[in-house]
Amino acid sequence: MSTWRKAQELAASQGIDALVVTPGADLRYLTGYVALPLERLTCLVLPAHGDPTLVVPALERQAAVASGTDIQIATWQETEDPFALVARLVGDVATVGVDDHMWASRVFALGAALPTADQVLAGSLVQQLRIRKSAEEVEALRQAGLAIDRVHARMSEWLRPGRTEREVGADIARAIIDEGHETVDFVIVGSGPNGASPHHELSDRVIEAGDPVVVDIGGTMPSGYCSDSTRNYVAGGTAPAEYLEAYLVLEEAHQAQREHARPGVTAESVDEVGRSIITAAGYGDLFIHRTGHGIGQETHEEPYIVAGNDLVLEEGMAFSIEPGIYFEGRFGARIEDIAVCTADGLEVLNNTPRGLVSL
Amino acid sequence: MSTWRKAQELAASQGIDALVVTPGADLRYLTGYVALPLERLTCLVLPAHGDPTLVVPALERQAAVASGTDIQIATWQETEDPFALVARLVGDVATVGVDDHMWASRVFALGAALPTADQVLAGSLVQQLRIRKSAEEVEALRQAGLAIDRVHARMSEWLRPGRTEREVGADIARAIIDEGHETVDFVIVGSGPNGASPHHELSDRVIEAGDPVVVDIGGTMPSGYCSDSTRNYVAGGTAPAEYLEAYLVLEEAHQAQREHARPGVTAESVDEVGRSIITAAGYGDLFIHRTGHGIGQETHEEPYIVAGNDLVLEEGMAFSIEPGIYFEGRFGARIEDIAVCTADGLEVLNNTPRGLVSL
Repeated sequence: MSTWRKAQELAASQGIDALVVTPGADLRYLTGYVALPLERLTCLVLPAHGDPTLVVPALERQAAVASGTDIQIATWQETEDPFALVARLVGDVATVGVDDHMWASRVFALGAALPTADQVLAGSLVQQLRIRKSAEEVEALRQAGLAIDRVHARMSEWLRPGRTEREVGADIARAIIDEGHETVDFVIVGSGPNGASPHHELSDRVIEAGDPVVVDIGGTMPSGYCSDSTRNYVAGGTAPAEYLEAYLVLEEAHQAQREHARPGVTAESVDEVGRSIITAAGYGDLFIHRTGHGIGQETHEEPYIVAGNDLVLEEGMAFSIEPGIYFEGRFGARIEDIAVCTADGLEVLNNTPRGLVSL
Repeated sequence: MSTWRKAQELAASQGIDALVVTPGADLRYLTGYVALPLERLTCLVLPAHGDPTLVVPALERQAAVASGTDIQIATWQETEDPFALVARLVGDVATVGVDDHMWASRVFALGAALPTADQVLAGSLVQQLRIRKSAEEVEALRQAGLAIDRVHARMSEWLRPGRTEREVGADIARAIIDEGHETVDFVIVGSGPNGASPHHELSDRVIEAGDPVVVDIGGTMPSGYCSDSTRNYVAGGTAPAEYLEAYLVLEEAHQAQREHARPGVTAESVDEVGRSIITAAGYGDLFIHRTGHGIGQETHEEPYIVAGNDLVLEEGMAFSIEPGIYFEGRFGARIEDIAVCTADGLEVLNNTPRGLVSL
């Protein structure tokens, strides 16, 4: 059954009369069409019963047709109001679900065009489908994992003392494409104190011998599925003793999480298993983020591996396991794999060495 | 005066008690902080009176501080509800303005956290500021224009019969970075029939001698300002006679629009001046999009050069002039420059040859 038919069934069962989905991962998942996130309105109008319509600006019609979608296409001209068209397609209904990332301007315009309908968020409805990956999707994530692993395996080509993070990052970005991705989504090279900022990207800092370096990289494959893996390097010299001590704790936490995660356990328990080890070793205050995020056609999606999330993991759920320890102003470390729940365990999709890699 | 103080004054004058602005061009414009568009909430809380606060997840604090913003920072931990924090900062007010691109999930969550406040769109308020570029911003756009012109000037290095659009596009992407951009925003190489789809990007189609090729490219400079320019090439051989005839009309329309656009005329009149020439020559139905879009820290922003937009152009407004003629299934052509209104005329920021370039 096509994904949009499944979404239709879910909408009907939840009392949502129609979904309106703008460009983003939900639209791609439901239609196969990779629409540009432009100011001109493109959206899927999916009634709970009946045929869906893909609304596109006239000048995007050829691109929409080229996507091979099986959904009928309706176009609007530059000087038309596309929300009037959407309202006609939705019809006189009580409840309209909108995608979680719909722009506020569109939420308001759709509300004005459908003044008697209640708006509700439909993101969780689509996430219910997206969160359980099919065998085909798992294979796509597996290929993405292999591709980013090939980049990490080549790190000695680029990461050397005397080079800046930005220089190393530019080489990594090229390799992300060369190894099979279609786009580079992020390149973090956090050397020395920059490694202590989890979302530091690149800077002109010159990498010195003995600097711990966090390398967190990912891209999107032609399949639309994403990669994301973090490894830790030291280029020349020896990392500080305090860092090395913490690193052993981090490895232990990561391993415990890999061994724990499986269908039937909660998302928050995976976080807790690693956090308790890091906390017991005295680094609890330095593990300043959740353990992980789901991944698929978005790098960050459900399920989130975080305290308070009592979601029970199921076969097909894919997520990162990425505990970290951060010494502000000095250095940081994070080990990250993507993993997917199998029928009775966990398949880890990144498999380059997890220990500190000396180059 | 800082941009956020100007926005504060506008908010007060419009009866908006506070603005809440999530990551995107508005946030960058108001704070200087380039926040990642992540699922964790980052936002500016800007009261009409009093001090603003930048709300960031704890793990982004170092990145926010590194941006050099003069705005105080408040952080939230992984297991906290950031909307409760935002609601405390906003306080008990009647009207809250949200940025136009705020995600629906945040619009709804903010509404639930501030149940007695009216939500209004604040995008046009910030656009009132962003639409008139300062001398510094014009200089940043000028540099972006020079950078993308350098890429077009090198087209003969890459565009040859026998190569695919994708191969040529990969070389162009590298050159966009080499010539000074920080990111590649889009690379359109539309050869032969692909040129008839205005937003075609790249394909594996092999470029043949005599194919008209539309090359529409742009990126973002380290300044945060964007480039965007389209030129037309034929690599080897001779373009079809019907194409060459239409191309002369397109050049005439583009020139008329450049000569017409200036402070005091309306946006729609710029569109009309070119459209009437194209229509008189019998190609009116083939000019399937508006004439242009504003540009700054976003590639597409106000003012839109489109029928129905009676906005009067003013000094500092920057926009594209890009008429096009598209023969579906055969070929297309589009000439695009970025231009900015000066005190009494128009400065065109792209200046490579506008005629069909034979390589």
